[in-house]
Amino acid sequence: MIQQIVLKSRPVGVPTSANFEILTIEIPELAKGTVRLKAHTFSVDPYMRGRMSEAKSYVAPFAVGEPVMGGGVAQVVESRAEGFKAGDFVLGMVPWQDQMVVDAAGLQVIDGNIAPLSYYLGILGMPGMTAYFGLLDIGKPQKGETVVVSGAAGAVGIVVGQIAKIKGCRVVGIAGDQSKVDYLINDLGFDAAINYKTETNIAGVLAAVCPDGVDVYFDNVGGEISDAVISQINKGARIIICGQISLYNATSQPVGPRIQPTILKKSALMQGFIVSNYASRFPEGFKALAEWVGSGQLKYTNTTYHGFEKLPEAFIALFEGKNLGKLIVEVK
Amino acid sequence: MIQQIVLKSRPVGVPTSANFEILTIEIPELAKGTVRLKAHTFSVDPYMRGRMSEAKSYVAPFAVGEPVMGGGVAQVVESRAEGFKAGDFVLGMVPWQDQMVVDAAGLQVIDGNIAPLSYYLGILGMPGMTAYFGLLDIGKPQKGETVVVSGAAGAVGIVVGQIAKIKGCRVVGIAGDQSKVDYLINDLGFDAAINYKTETNIAGVLAAVCPDGVDVYFDNVGGEISDAVISQINKGARIIICGQISLYNATSQPVGPRIQPTILKKSALMQGFIVSNYASRFPEGFKALAEWVGSGQLKYTNTTYHGFEKLPEAFIALFEGKNLGKLIVEVK
Repeated sequence: MIQQIVLKSRPVGVPTSANFEILTIEIPELAKGTVRLKAHTFSVDPYMRGRMSEAKSYVAPFAVGEPVMGGGVAQVVESRAEGFKAGDFVLGMVPWQDQMVVDAAGLQVIDGNIAPLSYYLGILGMPGMTAYFGLLDIGKPQKGETVVVSGAAGAVGIVVGQIAKIKGCRVVGIAGDQSKVDYLINDLGFDAAINYKTETNIAGVLAAVCPDGVDVYFDNVGGEISDAVISQINKGARIIICGQISLYNATSQPVGPRIQPTILKKSALMQGFIVSNYASRFPEGFKALAEWVGSGQLKYTNTTYHGFEKLPEAFIALFEGKNLGKLIVEVK
Repeated sequence: MIQQIVLKSRPVGVPTSANFEILTIEIPELAKGTVRLKAHTFSVDPYMRGRMSEAKSYVAPFAVGEPVMGGGVAQVVESRAEGFKAGDFVLGMVPWQDQMVVDAAGLQVIDGNIAPLSYYLGILGMPGMTAYFGLLDIGKPQKGETVVVSGAAGAVGIVVGQIAKIKGCRVVGIAGDQSKVDYLINDLGFDAAINYKTETNIAGVLAAVCPDGVDVYFDNVGGEISDAVISQINKGARIIICGQISLYNATSQPVGPRIQPTILKKSALMQGFIVSNYASRFPEGFKALAEWVGSGQLKYTNTTYHGFEKLPEAFIALFEGKNLGKLIVEVK
């Protein structure tokens, strides 16, 4: 028997455990081209909240009653697909199940000797590619410029900040916890970090720690934090819209100060970033990130939940800012 | 004696005639490198509102008590500058004066045989360059795509729409008057045009006239019109922020729906456009625009006020949407 976690109902506002349900299903037969996998580690990511709503986004909504799908590392138990043998570790978009029979076409065999398996869900996976291409391709940070990143202690943010440091920039992170602020400065070498939960005047503090203004803003959170950062941008600034986690659970249309007058006055660029648009260039990103990880220039950390049944709790924790680095669920 | 119009006080909200004053000054001596000009035609432009406020923008504020400066065509009366002789017509940024002694360095001799002199303030000048580079360089319209332009019947908008038609796009204009709507469709060949002053459901009408969504949005106005257009953008849309005239007279911070979630979902690009950033490429723009004007592919029109003392009234009329095409003041 297989355990699976399905979307029981669409969340209204912040997701709760009542939106999910554990079911048990039979193990299906293997068709040609499929493999049976044993789950190893799941990734929980903010973008998945979008798929839980009915509204169209850049990925289709999950169906109610069907298992949630997400990034995961799993081990091949049985294979009817060429190129996959029992014992292999694979990466792919997989259902929230402790075992699963899936088409092998979307899977990629990964090597635990290059990096810990969980890194393929983080710095060498989607969050790492997001940081790499979003910052370098849209942000184009130049030596001596100031880069601000929100959600700075998250899976993407810690990579953005470190790559910006490698590129010779002044780097300021915004996070929601004093221990995260300390980690960014002391462990990752950020020049400054701001705790938005205790800081009452974010724009004022930003002005103090960005004396030359903001050239690149990598935005993971949106909302009032972004209002404060955008008020400080320089002429020719680049703004990468990577996530808007502060708004994902909104139950009415979020409103705020109109930003177009600032975009105009500053001749600034704002671009929405979706990592899948860069799929053809993932090998380039993987190579660069793996080298920096290997040389110790890029540090990485996970927050790990243990146990298959913890998946909903871990996902919900994303919106409470409980994670430092990548939030994963180990089920091995 | 010279007549000049100075900024008497900074406007709060919509400018009024009380913000301006006509003074009389002596004709100064000509220093080497200067010319004395007789005003011919002045340009009044929305961006000048920004210079009347104290707040820093992409051009420095006007000083209270000093003459307003703007684009103008004038005729040389007396010259102490090489390359300029009496009778020449010149284009430049000039003070609101019926005569003026200015440094010749910022002036350009223009040829009334290529096009009417007023065109150098419009389609062959700043508004034309704005339309050309903003649409083509940022908007990158592709054949078959849908281009929406707000402020469509203004000096920039009528050029944007016609260039988009030349490029094979479906073109929809938004304007504030039925006669403008008729002009855009019947005289300029727009596929559709919307009167935002009488239309109560702009988003709904846009959806009807843009059945394939919006690929390029050239925004001259901002505010609620832009909210409606942005709600209809396609994946990969490009948004040129060229003007925000609906917000220029705001006396408090304008608020509206947050647009970053849409920018993210649609992987869209938004860029602030300032024409002076393209100064090095003006010859390219001039050549293309002059050819299209010459071949009749680009039509152009002015709304003309007559008399030097009408400058404030003409400028204020910009914010009342009274102009079709370029608003100019002839003083010759």
